[in-house]
Amino acid sequence: MAEKSKILIIGGTGYIGKYIVEASAKAGHPTFALVRESTASNPEKSQVIESFKSSGATLVYGDIYHHESLVKAIKQVDIVISAVGSQQIADQVKIIAAIKEAGNIKRFLPSEFGSDVDRVHAVEPAASFFGLKANIRRSIEAEGVPYTAIVSNGFAGYFLPNLGQTGATAPPRDKVVILGDGNPKAIFVKEEDIATYTIKAADDPRTLNKILYLRPPANILSFNEIVLLWEKKIGKTLEKSYVLEDQLLKKIQESPFPLNLLLSIVYSAFVKGDATNFEIEASFGVEASELYPEVKYTTVDEFLHQFV
Amino acid sequence: MAEKSKILIIGGTGYIGKYIVEASAKAGHPTFALVRESTASNPEKSQVIESFKSSGATLVYGDIYHHESLVKAIKQVDIVISAVGSQQIADQVKIIAAIKEAGNIKRFLPSEFGSDVDRVHAVEPAASFFGLKANIRRSIEAEGVPYTAIVSNGFAGYFLPNLGQTGATAPPRDKVVILGDGNPKAIFVKEEDIATYTIKAADDPRTLNKILYLRPPANILSFNEIVLLWEKKIGKTLEKSYVLEDQLLKKIQESPFPLNLLLSIVYSAFVKGDATNFEIEASFGVEASELYPEVKYTTVDEFLHQFV
Repeated sequence: MAEKSKILIIGGTGYIGKYIVEASAKAGHPTFALVRESTASNPEKSQVIESFKSSGATLVYGDIYHHESLVKAIKQVDIVISAVGSQQIADQVKIIAAIKEAGNIKRFLPSEFGSDVDRVHAVEPAASFFGLKANIRRSIEAEGVPYTAIVSNGFAGYFLPNLGQTGATAPPRDKVVILGDGNPKAIFVKEEDIATYTIKAADDPRTLNKILYLRPPANILSFNEIVLLWEKKIGKTLEKSYVLEDQLLKKIQESPFPLNLLLSIVYSAFVKGDATNFEIEASFGVEASELYPEVKYTTVDEFLHQFV
Repeated sequence: MAEKSKILIIGGTGYIGKYIVEASAKAGHPTFALVRESTASNPEKSQVIESFKSSGATLVYGDIYHHESLVKAIKQVDIVISAVGSQQIADQVKIIAAIKEAGNIKRFLPSEFGSDVDRVHAVEPAASFFGLKANIRRSIEAEGVPYTAIVSNGFAGYFLPNLGQTGATAPPRDKVVILGDGNPKAIFVKEEDIATYTIKAADDPRTLNKILYLRPPANILSFNEIVLLWEKKIGKTLEKSYVLEDQLLKKIQESPFPLNLLLSIVYSAFVKGDATNFEIEASFGVEASELYPEVKYTTVDEFLHQFV
């Protein structure tokens, strides 16, 4: 058996990054997590740093703003996965430059883990935010860096625990506010499953220079369908109110940052149905649950069960 | 009487910018709003563009990413007020460069309109977000551009209509979730009043190279005090639940962008009390309601009255 690819994760202590570090180590890849020394000594991050160590990942001190440390870290591996946060999306040009200089990287996975930013129908400020990720795709293409973009769609662990009722700590049992008319299909994938698919794709020749879409069939559901699933579980019908398109657009216009960004992302997903309103074509994409049928992903139904 | 200063507003179609354009024109300043041609023809912006015209402001086509158009616009005025959105905060270095080249600007007001970013106690990702504004302050100082930074604290029109119950379209009448223990004092100022104070400060020699803090005495209130005001108005006691510091920090850690940013801004305001936990010293700041006692600001109590 060939030796497993060596993987460097940048942004490994972030929301999705920590699952990716875990999945990479668990799959037997020699796994390296780039962390700043300030992050490694940050008490808020101590738990995740400890979990890296216990999962067998190696900490590499460095910083995307410190070119030499970055090139040095990159030279040690075969694959670079970026899971940097929103503030660093645009600065991934520094990772691309370091990959070019290092010259040894077989695949780069930029920080995506959301919608297909080339195919969304977004209003501002989400349009500009998605645009930052699209610009990084353009830089990758222009530089000829081998890549895979992971379009993981919605985070199950973000949306499902309160059915999108921002601020609530449990799914609603009386009333529910539905964004849009509740009919467009959205997609939710559990964070651990996103990481599993990401690691599988990272050195798969079938995903080279392609978008990997996560569309697990059981998890393609409209807002109304998710509410219905929940109602069946608790044996109760909820009182529903709808924030329709015009009203949501008005609220986006009238809200300050970052609420306007949150709402405009919601608009793209639940009003425009941007996760599902196009077909994946072989020229640009592949679908994860078809490629990796062996992955037993968590269904939305199973996920909701823990809250009953 | 001396001629009124000419004012250019950049970001005038945004959340706070539109109030500033209005206030500037109303105060009799020759008022110019820099807009991109794409913005001027955007149907979502047509209402605000029309309101500029009817208030007597002049549209100037240009873009902070187009140096020549920016320098040209700046050369026509005495004062530049930036109200650009979050995505352009860092790019205000381009405005600073254009002001330096133009050479005629008597005062620059960068896009602040929030907390004092040099005195907050924020966790990530708010810390980095505030850091972008702090970096702009450093660039202004380094370049020796005459400035005033407007620390307007909380937007009344954002927080008060639902008492911070994200997603709700009216203040609560049964239950309320209080962020933190509800005791630190926060500050809320109505958007129109923020704009009025901003325009008054824009050519006031007392605010030159200073921070203008908006701390209207009647609007310095804790979360608990605001809830109490509301309870008195509706003659009913609400059921209260508290999201305490540790729980809020955990939620910030566990939430994806942009919810983590929203919550970490909330943490700074309501747990750390960053609007009020320091004294304004004459060396760096002045207070707006003291400087302009003639402004009849809207109190939180008056603001809440419309929702009874």
